[in-house]
Amino acid sequence: MINSDYMKLAIQLALQGTGHTSPNPLVGAVIVKDDQIIGQGYHARYGDLHAERAALAACTQSPEGATIYVTLEPCCHHGKQPPCTEAILESGIKHVIIGSRDPNPLVSGKGSRILQEHGIEVTEDFMREECDAINAIFFHYIQTGMPYVTLKYAMTMDGRIATRTGASRWITGEKARENVHKDRNRHAAILAGIGTVLTDDPLLNCRIEGGKDPLRVICDTKLRIPLDSQIVRTAKEIPTIIAVGADLLQTSDTGSPVLRSSLPEISRKAEALKAAGCRILPLPLKDGHPDLHALMEALGKEKIDSVLIEGGSQIAWSALSCGIVNKIQTYIAPKIFGSQEAPGPVGGAGVELPAECFALGTPDIRMLGDDILIESEVISCSQASSKK
Amino acid sequence: MINSDYMKLAIQLALQGTGHTSPNPLVGAVIVKDDQIIGQGYHARYGDLHAERAALAACTQSPEGATIYVTLEPCCHHGKQPPCTEAILESGIKHVIIGSRDPNPLVSGKGSRILQEHGIEVTEDFMREECDAINAIFFHYIQTGMPYVTLKYAMTMDGRIATRTGASRWITGEKARENVHKDRNRHAAILAGIGTVLTDDPLLNCRIEGGKDPLRVICDTKLRIPLDSQIVRTAKEIPTIIAVGADLLQTSDTGSPVLRSSLPEISRKAEALKAAGCRILPLPLKDGHPDLHALMEALGKEKIDSVLIEGGSQIAWSALSCGIVNKIQTYIAPKIFGSQEAPGPVGGAGVELPAECFALGTPDIRMLGDDILIESEVISCSQASSKK
Repeated sequence: MINSDYMKLAIQLALQGTGHTSPNPLVGAVIVKDDQIIGQGYHARYGDLHAERAALAACTQSPEGATIYVTLEPCCHHGKQPPCTEAILESGIKHVIIGSRDPNPLVSGKGSRILQEHGIEVTEDFMREECDAINAIFFHYIQTGMPYVTLKYAMTMDGRIATRTGASRWITGEKARENVHKDRNRHAAILAGIGTVLTDDPLLNCRIEGGKDPLRVICDTKLRIPLDSQIVRTAKEIPTIIAVGADLLQTSDTGSPVLRSSLPEISRKAEALKAAGCRILPLPLKDGHPDLHALMEALGKEKIDSVLIEGGSQIAWSALSCGIVNKIQTYIAPKIFGSQEAPGPVGGAGVELPAECFALGTPDIRMLGDDILIESEVISCSQASSKK
Repeated sequence: MINSDYMKLAIQLALQGTGHTSPNPLVGAVIVKDDQIIGQGYHARYGDLHAERAALAACTQSPEGATIYVTLEPCCHHGKQPPCTEAILESGIKHVIIGSRDPNPLVSGKGSRILQEHGIEVTEDFMREECDAINAIFFHYIQTGMPYVTLKYAMTMDGRIATRTGASRWITGEKARENVHKDRNRHAAILAGIGTVLTDDPLLNCRIEGGKDPLRVICDTKLRIPLDSQIVRTAKEIPTIIAVGADLLQTSDTGSPVLRSSLPEISRKAEALKAAGCRILPLPLKDGHPDLHALMEALGKEKIDSVLIEGGSQIAWSALSCGIVNKIQTYIAPKIFGSQEAPGPVGGAGVELPAECFALGTPDIRMLGDDILIESEVISCSQASSKK
């Protein structure tokens, strides 16, 4: 009687909210009566109707006695929206089929229990793995308070991100670059090192139709970012944070960072950046670079649930070695550059022995035009754990 | 009436000769009568019966009036074995279904024509692509006189073949290393640089059951190979060539290389290597390294149809830049090493601009345990062509 096709449809519906529900999860719901779909819906945007209510609102006939397939356990608390459990109870639905459990340990299982206590049949964990997969970011964020971090780089088949002269336009083809823009849309923030800004003067925005620009965070220890860079010139339209070493700044009595009087030129530049629309965020230093773990904590507190790190072999290493990277995206172009002078995607100190490496999980591999995209979760950070 | 299952079986049979037919092709044959297989065979080993004769010899009833599926056009010339066309004519077979055409332009189509002239029905190009694929090496060799060259390397997900300290044991796992031994079995020769010998002291043999050791060729410009290296100590059991710079040697009146008297210690070492079973092969220099194009020509003349290049980022670059590489095998381990001091798989001068890269064809990707193997043909060598 339970039909996986309906849950598959609910997953497809859920994915339509991609990029717009943060920091809420993606959720889809399908209401079925007499083996006919009578309503469907999804959480389209943060603050909008939850999936269950959207599906109920779309019903073409009374949901009395119907079954609802929902990718995530219905909520039972008052947030921006009233609890979905209430809506289900009021609707007369008699069977609720749930994919993922609520990842919040304080709430998990509570929605199901309320429904059961009111005599509704509840089936849990149906296609749970598939349903969990669409909300990896949300689950990580809700459980840790830290953003889910994806490190992305593009290299040649011989592991080079530029030729020996530093030329890097272009490594990958159009379809791969298009996919990067889709990923920018999916992420709440994007992080790049100042080196990338100085070399490429990127815009780091999302150039797909209907897409949303992520918050841009530039890691810039010594405030070297040029006032005429594309990032600064667009900071009034696209939220932008410049993360600087805390040693450049001191904190005022009110808690807001002010510049040390001993560095007047830095002070003037910071004022100009603020006037241009940038936020200056001081961070404690670690090995001479802003501590990215502290940065992620700060972003997490600001409801940034996901960060895409794009560019800079130094920042790639810093991020890995402070243990914040959850996933690595390796784009490989069908090309060979050669030369040991040509840089690779991850710089920094590096490991001494193969056994000390950062280990990656089973890869997900697909073609994007002529390029290969390999996505792997970071499963161990021997460096990070030994330093903690 | 023509059934692809029989040709698929013929291909499977052909593959059973892998590693043993060189410089002959892999060929399989299946004889069918009244929709029943009455005989099957393959070319098992250089000098043995050709596939058609093997299948005829295995027939459980008279092949009179039968159909033969054969992966390659039957030969019509006297070599180590009499022509297969004659055997087919004698057998009374009435229909010959052929996969690949004979790649030798002097013979191509001749076998088919002889059969047709004797009233036999001939179907050509049946599943040609699949049949061609099993003999890429043979076709290349027969058409160019040069060995088919595969460049193999193993790197981490960040493109490193060792850590910054040079440690490289191990990058890949057991299944990937096992596959390397299968590939050694498939190749007539294996080529490595002296750097690899000095660092790893490898044996470069084939360690699979029933496997065959390829000829080992070490590129050693200045004859630095240690007499107590594993390669030298096993040179009496496994044929071994040390390719040296021709400037180390002069040629005697009889044409055989003798050492220049001005370098007595080199002379003594060369004698000791010869006594240990090694052959010394002098090669003209190119950019300070033995010219690999000349090496491949020399190997081609000695009926070496395939070479696997294993190890040495310098030799990888030399091979690519002189245009001899047909295929690249990239093994990728799910690991990150980091550091720009950690070497990548292709060294040498490298290209200056992305547009000057070596371009690779559509990749063939598969998992070997936890590692990824990406195989791609080299489709352009802008470097090589600009230098020619």
